[in-house]
Amino acid sequence: MAIGYWTVIVAAFSLLVGYISLPVSCRYEPNWDSLDKRPLPLWYDEVKFGVFISWGVFSVPGFGSEWFWYDWQYKKDKALVDFMKKNYPPGFTYADFASQFTAEFYQPDHWADIIEASGAKYIVLITKHHDGFTNWPSNVSFNWNSMDVGPKRDLVGELATAIRKKKGIHLGLYHSLFEWFNPLYLKDKANNFTTRYFPVEKSLPELYELVNTYKPDIIWSDGDNPTWTYWKSPEFIAWLYNDSPVKDTIVTNDRWGDVLCKHGDFWTCHDRFNPGHIIPHKWENCMTIDRGSWGYRRNIDLNTFLTIEELVATMVETVSCGGNLLMNVGPTHDGRIIPIFEERLRQVGQWLKVNGEAIYGTKPWSHQNDTVTKHLWYTSKKNSAGGVDVYAITLEWPANGVLQLGAVSAATHTQVTLLGYPKPIKYRQQTKGLLINVPFIPISAMPCQWGWTFKLSNLKY
Amino acid sequence: MAIGYWTVIVAAFSLLVGYISLPVSCRYEPNWDSLDKRPLPLWYDEVKFGVFISWGVFSVPGFGSEWFWYDWQYKKDKALVDFMKKNYPPGFTYADFASQFTAEFYQPDHWADIIEASGAKYIVLITKHHDGFTNWPSNVSFNWNSMDVGPKRDLVGELATAIRKKKGIHLGLYHSLFEWFNPLYLKDKANNFTTRYFPVEKSLPELYELVNTYKPDIIWSDGDNPTWTYWKSPEFIAWLYNDSPVKDTIVTNDRWGDVLCKHGDFWTCHDRFNPGHIIPHKWENCMTIDRGSWGYRRNIDLNTFLTIEELVATMVETVSCGGNLLMNVGPTHDGRIIPIFEERLRQVGQWLKVNGEAIYGTKPWSHQNDTVTKHLWYTSKKNSAGGVDVYAITLEWPANGVLQLGAVSAATHTQVTLLGYPKPIKYRQQTKGLLINVPFIPISAMPCQWGWTFKLSNLKY
Amino acid sequence: MAIGYWTVIVAAFSLLVGYISLPVSCRYEPNWDSLDKRPLPLWYDEVKFGVFISWGVFSVPGFGSEWFWYDWQYKKDKALVDFMKKNYPPGFTYADFASQFTAEFYQPDHWADIIEASGAKYIVLITKHHDGFTNWPSNVSFNWNSMDVGPKRDLVGELATAIRKKKGIHLGLYHSLFEWFNPLYLKDKANNFTTRYFPVEKSLPELYELVNTYKPDIIWSDGDNPTWTYWKSPEFIAWLYNDSPVKDTIVTNDRWGDVLCKHGDFWTCHDRFNPGHIIPHKWENCMTIDRGSWGYRRNIDLNTFLTIEELVATMVETVSCGGNLLMNVGPTHDGRIIPIFEERLRQVGQWLKVNGEAIYGTKPWSHQNDTVTKHLWYTSKKNSAGGVDVYAITLEWPANGVLQLGAVSAATHTQVTLLGYPKPIKYRQQTKGLLINVPFIPISAMPCQWGWTFKLSNLKY
Amino acid sequence: MAIGYWTVIVAAFSLLVGYISLPVSCRYEPNWDSLDKRPLPLWYDEVKFGVFISWGVFSVPGFGSEWFWYDWQYKKDKALVDFMKKNYPPGFTYADFASQFTAEFYQPDHWADIIEASGAKYIVLITKHHDGFTNWPSNVSFNWNSMDVGPKRDLVGELATAIRKKKGIHLGLYHSLFEWFNPLYLKDKANNFTTRYFPVEKSLPELYELVNTYKPDIIWSDGDNPTWTYWKSPEFIAWLYNDSPVKDTIVTNDRWGDVLCKHGDFWTCHDRFNPGHIIPHKWENCMTIDRGSWGYRRNIDLNTFLTIEELVATMVETVSCGGNLLMNVGPTHDGRIIPIFEERLRQVGQWLKVNGEAIYGTKPWSHQNDTVTKHLWYTSKKNSAGGVDVYAITLEWPANGVLQLGAVSAATHTQVTLLGYPKPIKYRQQTKGLLINVPFIPISAMPCQWGWTFKLSNLKY
Repeated sequence: MAIGYWTVIVAAFSLLVGYISLPVSCRYEPNWDSLDKRPLPLWYDEVKFGVFISWGVFSVPGFGSEWFWYDWQYKKDKALVDFMKKNYPPGFTYADFASQFTAEFYQPDHWADIIEASGAKYIVLITKHHDGFTNWPSNVSFNWNSMDVGPKRDLVGELATAIRKKKGIHLGLYHSLFEWFNPLYLKDKANNFTTRYFPVEKSLPELYELVNTYKPDIIWSDGDNPTWTYWKSPEFIAWLYNDSPVKDTIVTNDRWGDVLCKHGDFWTCHDRFNPGHIIPHKWENCMTIDRGSWGYRRNIDLNTFLTIEELVATMVETVSCGGNLLMNVGPTHDGRIIPIFEERLRQVGQWLKVNGEAIYGTKPWSHQNDTVTKHLWYTSKKNSAGGVDVYAITLEWPANGVLQLGAVSAATHTQVTLLGYPKPIKYRQQTKGLLINVPFIPISAMPCQWGWTFKLSNLKY
Repeated sequence: MAIGYWTVIVAAFSLLVGYISLPVSCRYEPNWDSLDKRPLPLWYDEVKFGVFISWGVFSVPGFGSEWFWYDWQYKKDKALVDFMKKNYPPGFTYADFASQFTAEFYQPDHWADIIEASGAKYIVLITKHHDGFTNWPSNVSFNWNSMDVGPKRDLVGELATAIRKKKGIHLGLYHSLFEWFNPLYLKDKANNFTTRYFPVEKSLPELYELVNTYKPDIIWSDGDNPTWTYWKSPEFIAWLYNDSPVKDTIVTNDRWGDVLCKHGDFWTCHDRFNPGHIIPHKWENCMTIDRGSWGYRRNIDLNTFLTIEELVATMVETVSCGGNLLMNVGPTHDGRIIPIFEERLRQVGQWLKVNGEAIYGTKPWSHQNDTVTKHLWYTSKKNSAGGVDVYAITLEWPANGVLQLGAVSAATHTQVTLLGYPKPIKYRQQTKGLLINVPFIPISAMPCQWGWTFKLSNLKY
Repeated sequence: MAIGYWTVIVAAFSLLVGYISLPVSCRYEPNWDSLDKRPLPLWYDEVKFGVFISWGVFSVPGFGSEWFWYDWQYKKDKALVDFMKKNYPPGFTYADFASQFTAEFYQPDHWADIIEASGAKYIVLITKHHDGFTNWPSNVSFNWNSMDVGPKRDLVGELATAIRKKKGIHLGLYHSLFEWFNPLYLKDKANNFTTRYFPVEKSLPELYELVNTYKPDIIWSDGDNPTWTYWKSPEFIAWLYNDSPVKDTIVTNDRWGDVLCKHGDFWTCHDRFNPGHIIPHKWENCMTIDRGSWGYRRNIDLNTFLTIEELVATMVETVSCGGNLLMNVGPTHDGRIIPIFEERLRQVGQWLKVNGEAIYGTKPWSHQNDTVTKHLWYTSKKNSAGGVDVYAITLEWPANGVLQLGAVSAATHTQVTLLGYPKPIKYRQQTKGLLINVPFIPISAMPCQWGWTFKLSNLKY
Repeated sequence: MAIGYWTVIVAAFSLLVGYISLPVSCRYEPNWDSLDKRPLPLWYDEVKFGVFISWGVFSVPGFGSEWFWYDWQYKKDKALVDFMKKNYPPGFTYADFASQFTAEFYQPDHWADIIEASGAKYIVLITKHHDGFTNWPSNVSFNWNSMDVGPKRDLVGELATAIRKKKGIHLGLYHSLFEWFNPLYLKDKANNFTTRYFPVEKSLPELYELVNTYKPDIIWSDGDNPTWTYWKSPEFIAWLYNDSPVKDTIVTNDRWGDVLCKHGDFWTCHDRFNPGHIIPHKWENCMTIDRGSWGYRRNIDLNTFLTIEELVATMVETVSCGGNLLMNVGPTHDGRIIPIFEERLRQVGQWLKVNGEAIYGTKPWSHQNDTVTKHLWYTSKKNSAGGVDVYAITLEWPANGVLQLGAVSAATHTQVTLLGYPKPIKYRQQTKGLLINVPFIPISAMPCQWGWTFKLSNLKY
């Protein structure tokens, strides 16, 4: 029977990614075997779409990328070296940028409005990148934090407050374990990581501070060289799961030292991870609208931004394959999300207003993309009648009036609709799948401009 | 006969706006009667669309508008006063901003690329606004110009060179006669403008410098309080027409001291002038994409920008009524046209690629907008067969498959096409005009997304 | 008779330098013959000692000298070029320094206190140097003056007010006619000075502004290349003498275009002019405590400052030969007279408290320095009894207890005293002058530490 | 016998201050009893005179004092609050000053020249004040040190190198244990100092770094609240004495937590400690030429500087009573010792050139000041003949030609000389001491201008 088939598929997937809550009679132990047993808190798989915010001292030069310091001073990247020579006095250092991180236009409530309008259900904010500058008044980053120099504000705290006013948006915090140039880290490195000054005096105190102070739903760890033994990651995660104030809701990723794509509540594997097929664990596609940088770049041409068509396509592909999409924007040194980013985010939100039903709370279907028609992706969701609705999202509007779904078979009561379009859609079952009669809709009456969802109910299994 | 009718219309319009070259056996005299006799150089009416560029020291605060100095210091606008109090030390002056006008990302060739892509056929660049700061190394603005302080470059000269590399784009220069706070101007004002220190020592030398150095096709004058007698405008314009190196091509506007909408090669009347009907003189609609400011503003929300739909509508309305459209963008202090402006300009260019035939080189038709269908505007153009083609541009795609043109009557050989669409369009003549059968075009095959042009050939007159 | 002899000497000198007021029945004409007939206002010869103040945008780099801009940009002086390369971003201009001319510690009353304590009876303040930056809100230096940028204060006006509170200190204003880089000046120069844009539009309006606004007692002109015909100097000076609000008290120097050491109320001839003998006109020795610069230099060693011994010697030599001493200090960009300058000035004041009787109001004597003893200089003054007192100022305290004055002959009633020492001094008349028995005075009882004055009354003539 | 008497006195004093080296068969233990047993390395008592250098981020505002941050932000001192309001944008922080700590004129060799010329035999340089900014690239002060921000130089290392080129000048390093606003310190404080995060992670690592890297002869500790148990001071000092690379030469003071005037190689007791009598331990008078601040102040009047007379008096009093004199100057943010400081230091050096014999290597005599004549102080020294020379230093030159030494008795062979004066001095023994016939020396032949030393040999004991 149809439902049964789907149930098996979903159950199998859910099992693999640990959706089904196992009774946990005891505390998690600080080892991966134990930690891996924890079920993923349900909210994370349901929200599907988040906004990543890359902001820091690197936003001041606004050139190159958020790796500005490293690429300039360590890699001696010519473009960056020339940029500094041309525009700054000799001897100007990265730390000298900090006092120009002014944030005078930073209005967290306005950011929250934009995020809400984008349809995102969570954010991940950089609290500290590899430069070590903390966007909150950390106890272990004296005079190298956003309260002591530059903005003179608790950037993290203010956004946390603003986001919490919006119902249903979760707070995630990005934190880099390592710091390129911190002498304590370099000392440990020189000691072949047999000493642990840096994690003990810097990284771990920061993580505890962040969790205890801001009570996030996500810790998005990064900069995890060399190993989890050095970072004592299992110990920290065990505390997160057992004793932290967010132990029931917190999720974390897989960047904790040599465990990428192996351990963690969700896997990120690598930046812009978008496998195109299901993988046996919950994952996230962390990507950025400016295809060349996470941090704000002043000197970008329009064509380096992903178009709204590309963004919708990325979302559809990602969600079809079981991933969450985390879409990055880089605010400016003075605290603005520039209009082109705002426009993209609002366009995504417009699209989700029509097509969100095919995204939020869905599960991958038995097929991810169609067997016949290209650029057509599936998601699925249990409906209130106990059945399963399948969403076929086509990224290209059929020019010839028909759309062939090779992976689908109609049953007697199968119904087809187009999300955002009031009338039922006609179809014919064929040998090789289902053939949809795409109606002639004038441009002014189209439900949306990019990515259209045909909802299929009561399919045959 | 049909052609005859159109000829009369156009001739009448042309006469009014002085298109027809009168034989001029002698030099223009420095009075309006004589100056008004000069025919408009043909190029200006043909190009239809230009880009205005508002750039200067006001781009450094990037707050309020290009009137920053005046609104802050003279009007004591609270928002500006507060902005300065919050972000600058006490006593910081407008002149102190100049050294932060860095222009490090100013690449004139890149600007020219964007302008070319927008379909604009001329630009108007601010060379000096009411703050008196000259964007070129003027001889009469010592240490208050872009070579001595700030950019240390000849902003005007560099853009002139870049624009000239693009064939078919004309160079226009904006110049403010008066300066809010120049003591020489204030002295003349205190003398009730019976003295003329300021025009003699400042404004006029600047204008001669600009024309002799950069040989522009447009002098776009502004800031013309109080009167042309004070500014000696007729004398300068007579020189422009008789002896300047650009005497054959130069055009100028109507802001020369109390002659707005009265004298000058083209009339601007007031900012964002868009009368909605024909007026008996060539005119220009000077407007700006950021509806609240000409100069760059850092803290703007997306919704203050005109949408591409609004921009296309403005262009269509303007050209239908005989105007040129001059669309403004405000670059940043560091020399960038921000992505949202670039996007809008490129979208306009995409639209013009399809619909430019209905814009460039056209004349107003006997009707400007339709008598039945709203948001539908006409232009017209002589075709190679000696006839006249009429362009009906609808800003709304008809949802019901028919488009009624009340102002049009078909003749035997009348043909209808849709610009950018390969097949002929069917129509029926009705009592009340012509009825077009709008074809069903899937969104993916639409010639463009906003503003569609039906070309009507061999109409009945 | 003795008095007669002295009278002849002084009268001769006075005649030469024009002390004796000639009846002037008519107005001065704008030519040197007429202007030279004006008697020197009495106050100027009597005051003897003034303080020169070199302050401007050049005080911001505080490096090289007040010729910073010229030496850096025009002469390409290596030290300055290197200094800029090392400490500023490429493209930093001289005008960019202006916003750092902060003057936050400028307290004119405090300056006036120091000047008063120095014993100076006049000051000469730079109002505009060759860079063209005006230290007052000039009408013809828009945005390149101390009110529009940098200090945001009327530096000249504030010091004028403070100085006037101190009785008996005269206000002098330094003003440079030419400006190295002013395009108007360069234009006139390119025209071989056949045009006169610059003096007409810039220099002369400034001079009238200064005189009418601040009513100075001295206009100290400088930068007078090329000629007085170009500058129209005689016309201006005739106005000064005939019609200006300070026509009775004003004095001016000889830097008005090719008239150095030829015309003007007092002659400066060249910087640090100190001829060592009488010249037939009132003159001034304009020198500076920092022997290498007039403007403040941050990086100076102690040994570039003249010692108090050298300063006292310079004053004694200068006054003995009929000159006034104008001693320069260069304040800092933030408005301070640094302690070492203050110390020197106060030491001069201490010396003048004891020895001022031999300086203020004196005339040169028949001998300027002694015929036998080196480093011993004479001044003279009519006393209340109608006789003449002669002051023999020795710069070296005699180690052997006797001081031989070869130029002096004692008469019967001749008396000798040491200024600041209570007891009469014994002497013997010898064949070759007068021999003073210098008393044994312990260091703790010495009237002063450098330069001692023996006052000789009732000498034989 | 005379020598015997002196020997007893000196021996007694030496014993008290631990001059006599005790055989140490074992290592020092980390308790004060053991540490106190260490003999003072001989060099320190012999050198007598050092220069203290207060330099840091506080030199940038150059206002108030080196306590700028604390007085402004914690005490809310009105003058400082107003200064910031008037001259900086709201929200400007102390850390923002760091990038303006430019040090472009810092030439350590030039500093060393001045110090050498002053006659100083040691320096003490601030390496870190209470603001926590390290003047060397510390491993535990990331981005809050002179290499990462501001000077971008190792200020400590460069001066160490320059000083070592001068023979006979010892290097001392000032280091503040506590930091006003370091969150780790505040955390320990909140824990009532039961935790020790700050000393373990910050202060102690710094001290080891400093000693191992720069191998100083003095660690001049400061900021020692609350207690030595918190700071683990005995442990560190034991390491200094037992195992450090400078264990044989290092000396340290008494600011290690509640041991002021109790423990340490030399005692400082309080700033400007100058008891006026012998105390039973080696001590140091740490004072500053600017009587109101250790750090550079831009806005100081001349009269806040101690005069050279006061400085000589302080040195004489201090050395007479067994102390060392440590005289402070505060360099500027751009790395200069301003001329007035240089002048004072060079004057001290001139004085020491003549009178150094009475200072360097001396011991207190049985009397410190005279019993009859005021302002007259004694020092003493073993001479090559095995006897003891006594130096009577008078701060006032006797006006009446005689100087009475009440504390002295002449013997048969007693000789009196005046340092710097070639001839022997006559005297008479009287009932109440010895009466010196002060010769009549003209000012030009005086050996020095302030503080004169009569050397007494072969006195009666």
